[in-house]
Amino acid sequence: MNTYLDCIPCALRQALDAARLITDDERIHEQIVREILKITADLDLNRPPPWIGQIIHRRLRALSGVADPYRSLKSQFNRLAMAVLPELKACIEQGPEPLIAAAKYAIAGNVIDFGVKSSLDEHEVARSLRDSGSTATYGDWAEFKRHMERAKEILYLADNAGEIALDRLLIEELGPERVTLVVRGSAVINDATLEDVLEVGLSGLVRTMDNGSDAPGTILEDCSPAFREKFHTAEVIIAKGQGNFETLNDVKTNIFFLMKVKCPVIARHVGLPIGAQAVIHSNG
Amino acid sequence: MNTYLDCIPCALRQALDAARLITDDERIHEQIVREILKITADLDLNRPPPWIGQIIHRRLRALSGVADPYRSLKSQFNRLAMAVLPELKACIEQGPEPLIAAAKYAIAGNVIDFGVKSSLDEHEVARSLRDSGSTATYGDWAEFKRHMERAKEILYLADNAGEIALDRLLIEELGPERVTLVVRGSAVINDATLEDVLEVGLSGLVRTMDNGSDAPGTILEDCSPAFREKFHTAEVIIAKGQGNFETLNDVKTNIFFLMKVKCPVIARHVGLPIGAQAVIHSNG
Repeated sequence: MNTYLDCIPCALRQALDAARLITDDERIHEQIVREILKITADLDLNRPPPWIGQIIHRRLRALSGVADPYRSLKSQFNRLAMAVLPELKACIEQGPEPLIAAAKYAIAGNVIDFGVKSSLDEHEVARSLRDSGSTATYGDWAEFKRHMERAKEILYLADNAGEIALDRLLIEELGPERVTLVVRGSAVINDATLEDVLEVGLSGLVRTMDNGSDAPGTILEDCSPAFREKFHTAEVIIAKGQGNFETLNDVKTNIFFLMKVKCPVIARHVGLPIGAQAVIHSNG
Repeated sequence: MNTYLDCIPCALRQALDAARLITDDERIHEQIVREILKITADLDLNRPPPWIGQIIHRRLRALSGVADPYRSLKSQFNRLAMAVLPELKACIEQGPEPLIAAAKYAIAGNVIDFGVKSSLDEHEVARSLRDSGSTATYGDWAEFKRHMERAKEILYLADNAGEIALDRLLIEELGPERVTLVVRGSAVINDATLEDVLEVGLSGLVRTMDNGSDAPGTILEDCSPAFREKFHTAEVIIAKGQGNFETLNDVKTNIFFLMKVKCPVIARHVGLPIGAQAVIHSNG
């Protein structure tokens, strides 16, 4: 997906919010805003929006000298999501469609995103996760189920920390032996990395790899050759979150995007309301 | 008032909204965004926020080739405000404090602003004007009344078209013979100019002048010598709207700002909630 003009003021606001979250140093706040203004003035709009996110957060890490500024927030929301897991697991097992129910909880976990919002309330997140079983979702769930049932192997592109604890619910329903879980190559915003896979105890359950990139999405040309090989030979891919949608929706392969619609640009692009939880099947 | 870092993404969003309102030409939308990115990258933050607004709207008029893109919207809202005038006038005359009531309606008219929002619903505006008599307002109204009662001459800096029709209510209570009404020197957003003074029939009632500037506020060094002379010798000044506040709140003279608080930066700056209607007395 291209970057829309609307994405630029939004990215700037996000850069400023992130800078304030990471450091109290107002010189850094000003410097990051000025740098992003300069970069976006000549931005190639054919790049996907996470390309700006990657630049912003690389510069913020460099300017602040902190390699993983969201580390403690990631651990906090990993713990939070793990605490509600047993309750959600019980709901899934009691219902008639455990695979679809698990997918919906996995989408609900996508509320834990420090890219779009710079602050999240723990109680609000926990309530949102519990309520999500009864939240309307969009998309062709029967088709999702059909593809998942017949797939021999499933490539599962995770999105955020916290959220990744809830991906366990869907991975267990899919059968962990069929799944390869992919996380970001290194820290960017609160996106999940291998450290989060360890924290939420998924490393013993499912094959895991990282994609070699620090973009808050999956910019294929920025990923490792090993990941790209895996991606291009995958039978079916599950991709979580807006960042993965924005970077992969034009790629011609069999992808099911599981995501919450979080901004007006995406809402218009996919024709769904903001806040919608959706499965979107794409062949590019 | 300085420009805050938060003002920059907001100004960019406003520039894009305004570009879309003025023209369907997407090349102009992109060009204005890129130009404003370049200009703000090196922005002197000591300038007030309306300085960016002035640049944006000058460039939009030049790029679109339309000298007064908001002309028809201005006339539309002049008519709307004039239609509710008799009803509001009756309310003022029935109440115990006609001067203060008139000031509150004059502030309520400040809802008609295409700078902050790019679209306004006529019915919503009419309802907001009618409801404003019962809306909470902030500030020291007794002090306002005291200064107004004893002033020999009052300089009245108008803000927007539409709103200026409601300024008549306050000007009538002040006594038109004491008032000099000032509008912008030429078209910028939907700010009132001499054309609006004529349209709402104020030209026969009150002495009027323009300030010689096309900034959406009062940037003194950009105004005509005649206006500056008037300003610096004024006994008391009424200044309507955020744009006038942002450009004059640090000037050491006797000003009563009558305005609605429309953005989080101003809300924080003045310590009032967004949406608040307020009189703020400043000596700089």
